[in-house]
Amino acid sequence: MERIGFIGLGTMGLPMAENLLKAGYSLVVFNRTSDKSEKLRVLGAQIAACPADVTRMSDVVFTMLSNDAVVEEVFLGKEGIKYGVKSGQIIVDSSTISPKTSRKLAEELGSLGAEVLDAPVMGTEQQAIEGNLTFMVGGKKENFEKVLPLLSSMGKNSYHMGGSGNGSFTKLANNTMGAINLLAFTEGIIMATKVGIDPELFIKVISGGARSGMVDYKGEKIIKRDFQPNFTTALMHKDLSLAQQLASENQIPMPVLSLVREMLQMAIAQGYAHEDVCSVVKCYEQWAGVEAGKIH
Amino acid sequence: MERIGFIGLGTMGLPMAENLLKAGYSLVVFNRTSDKSEKLRVLGAQIAACPADVTRMSDVVFTMLSNDAVVEEVFLGKEGIKYGVKSGQIIVDSSTISPKTSRKLAEELGSLGAEVLDAPVMGTEQQAIEGNLTFMVGGKKENFEKVLPLLSSMGKNSYHMGGSGNGSFTKLANNTMGAINLLAFTEGIIMATKVGIDPELFIKVISGGARSGMVDYKGEKIIKRDFQPNFTTALMHKDLSLAQQLASENQIPMPVLSLVREMLQMAIAQGYAHEDVCSVVKCYEQWAGVEAGKIH
Repeated sequence: MERIGFIGLGTMGLPMAENLLKAGYSLVVFNRTSDKSEKLRVLGAQIAACPADVTRMSDVVFTMLSNDAVVEEVFLGKEGIKYGVKSGQIIVDSSTISPKTSRKLAEELGSLGAEVLDAPVMGTEQQAIEGNLTFMVGGKKENFEKVLPLLSSMGKNSYHMGGSGNGSFTKLANNTMGAINLLAFTEGIIMATKVGIDPELFIKVISGGARSGMVDYKGEKIIKRDFQPNFTTALMHKDLSLAQQLASENQIPMPVLSLVREMLQMAIAQGYAHEDVCSVVKCYEQWAGVEAGKIH
Repeated sequence: MERIGFIGLGTMGLPMAENLLKAGYSLVVFNRTSDKSEKLRVLGAQIAACPADVTRMSDVVFTMLSNDAVVEEVFLGKEGIKYGVKSGQIIVDSSTISPKTSRKLAEELGSLGAEVLDAPVMGTEQQAIEGNLTFMVGGKKENFEKVLPLLSSMGKNSYHMGGSGNGSFTKLANNTMGAINLLAFTEGIIMATKVGIDPELFIKVISGGARSGMVDYKGEKIIKRDFQPNFTTALMHKDLSLAQQLASENQIPMPVLSLVREMLQMAIAQGYAHEDVCSVVKCYEQWAGVEAGKIH
């Protein structure tokens, strides 16, 4: 049985690593803070001292990190993955980052004979726990096929989206659509509530028409005024900024994406950066003079 | 058994009237052009000479018309419904129009003792044929309950949304959300296609994430380049214009709605007014330099 490395044991990474253990793989892990690693050590994982060591001690390495800068540091920085790779080794990055960074890592590690896949996921923490994630993978198809059994221990669906970076690109396009769908829902429910329509009834009715994943994910949160983050405004704004930059570099006009990014910037200005992205509804409540809690 | 009047036998009105006939109601109809009326006459409906006559000959009258101006003409114009109503008679308008017009009709006919409900529908021609529409109804609750058996002959779900105009308001808010969701999908699929991701695979993948009714309704049409209208760009633009005007009157800022309306204006400028609203994707193809048919 292969030995798998796992770097980054956050909200998503920890349950993903646990599912690899449950599937019978032996695991070697690294996390910046050690309490998460401890939890896995009790379950049988080895703890390594740095990303380079994880890489030396493993056949395949997974990373699940928070942004481009952290990914670059873990891959290319001091005691990074780069200093541990062997020829032919596959590194799978499940972070949501820019396709440009994904391609850069694939090139840099490729020059050392290693293979990098960008494999960001769709799904919540709960889906990560249940092994019910969706992987969108960019890179060589034969490498995708080699790691497919590993992906299948953590997710229900895995798709090969094309060459290096296309996994990251798919994730950003998906999040762009999600953010715009959220603003569609926000403007719709504000409009309805302002004229006296019951917001819960409104959600029920439009679910037979202008339905969306965002109505399903955020409808109840908005009604219950639960702005605890499943996905923060700051993270969505980061993703839209990446998407906008890429669209610009590819000369694709994205007017609606751009506006929605600005709306989230306003939510951040109002202090909602670390609340759930659906807290943008509170900005609209203020602008429209809809009493906070009227959408209850 | 009651006798029901039906005015406006277009794409939606004709199958709706047929379902009333099938449910055993006797029907008296009027349409500006007579060929549609003929079809119903063969099935047992009576044909009246004008809206006023339909109203005189019926207990409850339904209207299904194309826009505010036509609705006003049929209700208040020469030989209009107004000149045939009796006290207590219920008129149900299923057209998609401004809530302001809905309220005006309720007031004008109310002064003659009649009762008007705004009851626009969600659903396609196919759903109208199958009796599977959703009615969103504004007006007095007791009147909603009186006509509920009639609505149930034509639709699966009927909701009382509140006072006069709230049915129309719900429909406009739903269409606003739908149009924004469509633009979300359009920007997402253009972005993906431009960087070489297979558009059919993209649709499959995002259906597990940023899914929406619009992806379901329009995904296959866009892939097949079928721009035959289920709902034209011109009609959606009309609805967004109504929604924007209402939002403005109610002092609700709706930046995303406003931008999406402008995007559809651009599609109209390109000659797509009478194609399906999803033809806006052709504008984006041109702007982004995505070869027409690459989304195939």
